[in-house]
Amino acid sequence: MTYLFNDPAAFAADAVQGLALSHPDHVAVVHGGVVRATETPAGQPALVIGGGSGHYPAFAGWVGPGMGHGAPCGNVFASPSASQVYSVARNAENGGGVILGFGNYAGDVLHFGAAAEKLRAEGIDVRIIKVSDDIVSNTPENHRDRRGIAGDLPVFKIAGAAIEAGADLDEAERLAWKANDATRSFGVAFDGPTLPGAAGALFHVPEGQMGVGLGIHGEPGVRDEPIGTADEIATMLVEGVLAEQPERTEGGYQGRAAVLVNGLGTVKHEELFVVYAKVAELLETAGITPVRPEVGELVTSLDMAGLSLTLVFLDEELEQHWLAPVDTPALHRGAMTGAAERPRRTVFWEAGADEIPVASSESREVAGKVAGVLDLFAGVCAREEAELGRIDAIAGDGDHGQGMAYGSKGAAAAARQALEDGAGARTLLVRAGEAWSESAGGTSGALWGAALIAAGAVYDDQAGAEARTVVDAVDAGIDAIQRLGGAQVGDKTMVDAAAPFREELAKAFTGANAAEAILQAAEVAREAADATAEITATLGRARVLGEKSVGTPDPGAISFSILMRELGRHLS
Amino acid sequence: MTYLFNDPAAFAADAVQGLALSHPDHVAVVHGGVVRATETPAGQPALVIGGGSGHYPAFAGWVGPGMGHGAPCGNVFASPSASQVYSVARNAENGGGVILGFGNYAGDVLHFGAAAEKLRAEGIDVRIIKVSDDIVSNTPENHRDRRGIAGDLPVFKIAGAAIEAGADLDEAERLAWKANDATRSFGVAFDGPTLPGAAGALFHVPEGQMGVGLGIHGEPGVRDEPIGTADEIATMLVEGVLAEQPERTEGGYQGRAAVLVNGLGTVKHEELFVVYAKVAELLETAGITPVRPEVGELVTSLDMAGLSLTLVFLDEELEQHWLAPVDTPALHRGAMTGAAERPRRTVFWEAGADEIPVASSESREVAGKVAGVLDLFAGVCAREEAELGRIDAIAGDGDHGQGMAYGSKGAAAAARQALEDGAGARTLLVRAGEAWSESAGGTSGALWGAALIAAGAVYDDQAGAEARTVVDAVDAGIDAIQRLGGAQVGDKTMVDAAAPFREELAKAFTGANAAEAILQAAEVAREAADATAEITATLGRARVLGEKSVGTPDPGAISFSILMRELGRHLS
Repeated sequence: MTYLFNDPAAFAADAVQGLALSHPDHVAVVHGGVVRATETPAGQPALVIGGGSGHYPAFAGWVGPGMGHGAPCGNVFASPSASQVYSVARNAENGGGVILGFGNYAGDVLHFGAAAEKLRAEGIDVRIIKVSDDIVSNTPENHRDRRGIAGDLPVFKIAGAAIEAGADLDEAERLAWKANDATRSFGVAFDGPTLPGAAGALFHVPEGQMGVGLGIHGEPGVRDEPIGTADEIATMLVEGVLAEQPERTEGGYQGRAAVLVNGLGTVKHEELFVVYAKVAELLETAGITPVRPEVGELVTSLDMAGLSLTLVFLDEELEQHWLAPVDTPALHRGAMTGAAERPRRTVFWEAGADEIPVASSESREVAGKVAGVLDLFAGVCAREEAELGRIDAIAGDGDHGQGMAYGSKGAAAAARQALEDGAGARTLLVRAGEAWSESAGGTSGALWGAALIAAGAVYDDQAGAEARTVVDAVDAGIDAIQRLGGAQVGDKTMVDAAAPFREELAKAFTGANAAEAILQAAEVAREAADATAEITATLGRARVLGEKSVGTPDPGAISFSILMRELGRHLS
Repeated sequence: MTYLFNDPAAFAADAVQGLALSHPDHVAVVHGGVVRATETPAGQPALVIGGGSGHYPAFAGWVGPGMGHGAPCGNVFASPSASQVYSVARNAENGGGVILGFGNYAGDVLHFGAAAEKLRAEGIDVRIIKVSDDIVSNTPENHRDRRGIAGDLPVFKIAGAAIEAGADLDEAERLAWKANDATRSFGVAFDGPTLPGAAGALFHVPEGQMGVGLGIHGEPGVRDEPIGTADEIATMLVEGVLAEQPERTEGGYQGRAAVLVNGLGTVKHEELFVVYAKVAELLETAGITPVRPEVGELVTSLDMAGLSLTLVFLDEELEQHWLAPVDTPALHRGAMTGAAERPRRTVFWEAGADEIPVASSESREVAGKVAGVLDLFAGVCAREEAELGRIDAIAGDGDHGQGMAYGSKGAAAAARQALEDGAGARTLLVRAGEAWSESAGGTSGALWGAALIAAGAVYDDQAGAEARTVVDAVDAGIDAIQRLGGAQVGDKTMVDAAAPFREELAKAFTGANAAEAILQAAEVAREAADATAEITATLGRARVLGEKSVGTPDPGAISFSILMRELGRHLS
């Protein structure tokens, strides 16, 4: 049970306030999360790490000298929104670029990715690190597609230490990926967590059983089996992780490993120590020396019962950064210059403080046309809302029509406001994209929002627009959808319509015929969207009910093709 | 649930191993618990803090520079035995005396007290600090008789910092008591913990209710009431603690307070932060400035659901030590010389390594007589076992006969072994006392063991014995029982026989007639023991079934009077 909350909807925000009040030397609250309370050197890369709340000390507990520069904090078990990530990153960034680090989950990939688009559109160098340590969630060959669990800690610890030691953005990114590629975790769960205000747990493991490899939000694992002794469980976890122990090489991994035994919530300190005693014995037998092990609650999941074992197969460079001093609310090591002694930061960036950049009349004219397109989209989505909802309800959760209607309406309103405030085309699209993402929620909202923001990056607030620019903007938007959504053609998502649309557009556009080319490509998109009815969903909203989705097209693909057709008609 | 264990009986010991393996720079395992892995300056007082296991980070998690020197670790929720405390203290002591610190619980009072007797008998200066912060467990006037909960942390933190800063034993003791007297806690519980291997929780709070003031092992609280919001609970806790806020004085308390929000196990980090946000607001309203708050799992109770609020009303001196650097497995602050940089300790004291001190033939002759008395006691207890068990079962748990039989048998065997190894009277009695306590277990075993050890301190291993010595030894033994057991005449315990025995013995003994005086006092003791049948038990084993005990004498008082009568006869 989660016992202590006020308004459950405000739980995550209330917790962030309490964290900052109890650690005023370490962290300060900004819109969307926390940043260091102390100043950082100009030009130092900013490590911005985050994810949903409910996982403390991940991620806000790791903000401070030697580790994170900021942490966007989403709702419980929900990715922070792109605007939260953006706000925290803007506050953390200090001229050295930004690393956005998070566990590899679809929602986080999307929202951190959308924030990265916006930051890049503003000229900030952004790198993305997706932690992917959970061995049960994909094959060794595809280990970068695994989900992230307690491996977040060593990856961000090592990246933060490298930055503290003077690494630039390239070097910090290199080390973060290197740490991630050297990190493997394996866990078991005994019972599920209960969200604040919920009557029961998110899921249960059958009594007396343990879910081997079960994810920290209940994602599928490998199998259920009877709960073993602590020694048996320790043995299973060690064997699992050691199956991916790398070769020992001169100058590389030589049998030294950072070791983490992580409790998810109700598995307590002494239990974790009992497990560690066996882990240490087994590692010794395997010729592995644990380096500064961490045994405790490192990446939790509210009151979930379970634990995981993580090993980081160290070389000299990784070990040096793993052992370096750190001073954060939850992780302290060694005698580093503590947060309390560093100069306190006094100036913060605020969302409202962003002025609309001065735009040329040419760009404002383009912006007016773009606002018109967004009005059109809002009208079309309102008209199609019921039908899109109907299609989505067959194998999904039925919210696609509403999401598209809310998102496009919010985007159109934000565009009108920006236009009134004198925005040029780039700024208007960025604001509209943010509004779409915020208003719609969900995956398709984040993708459409990111698409508008990416399209905005094609414009600037000075030049007018040619036919070329419109096509480039559409192309950039679809590119963002493909990159952020991570879907391939055949996965039964929006991409099944967007990808052939993009190809056809590139072929059909000859330099001046934008409207015509878009219309032609929209025809191809519609055919492709209809053809998704034959596909079994494997990704996205309909994944869970894969088989059931056969015979119905993907609603995201349908809505995409409709909007592109309307765009083409509008431009004609 | 507690999920991770091997042999439940070995759970606490397994956890200690795992702790030490994961923190080799901080702690080393010795018999009975852990001590610092690093050397301490010669002449520095040793702060030895402990209690039952299941409360991590209390107490072993607080061993390291700036805090504890050692921690005896009992079984789950059970006091460490006197020999565990003694072993850890012997290892921690480095020529500056020992402070034994623990939460105020009967078992801990007894076992730490018995260990203190033994240490003192060996010439070590020992001070005892009983933490008593839980406001619901006694009146403000009797606050030193309250039980200890999360107040353990600040009291030991402050005492440890004072020692690190150079305090001698007197000064460290003064500061520890000062910190304790300035500390107040108040908690609530939502559900009980489950012991390793147990099928269900130790207790439950009715669903939807919270046990206000419920102790961390399920000790009675104030009342049950419906679970409130986080803000309501925070408000109740703050109001409760602030009811005992001291006056503000120049040079004294001026509105600055250390603040702890402690989770007992399944109440998680974010929940505690939500509570802290309200606590901070209420303290601000009350004109109180939180100083370096601690929000987290500080003194746990396995997977118990609950939390407590602790305030330490600081003056300048207490604040200075509260803020001082510390480097332990679970508590780190500031940039102190870390444990890893201090010289590693290599020599440890081991129980078995204690040589029998060389004794004179006179003392060995006395030792032989003492061994004879212990043989006698073992015979008498075996004879009376069934009857004592029968009496005890009426209002107690029925184990008094067995406990006396096991304890006296163990003591007699240890005495014979010591005699064979050439021990004098003092050493023989100390060994026999230790064996009694270990063999019997339980309260009466600890008291009888302590009595023999205290009696041993009257002898030495050189001189013979006069009649005076025998009477002094008996007197010293009873004195130990009274001091350690904490019972008064009329509480229906062994003391109801022992106290009048002691008085009568003092009157009757004229300098030579030891046997006669003991016999005469034993008569008085027997009458007093029989008279306990009229008393309702309020302490000790029969407390829980108080009313039911009327009409039956206290078995501990009966066994005491029988053994004293047999002793008198034997000496005649």
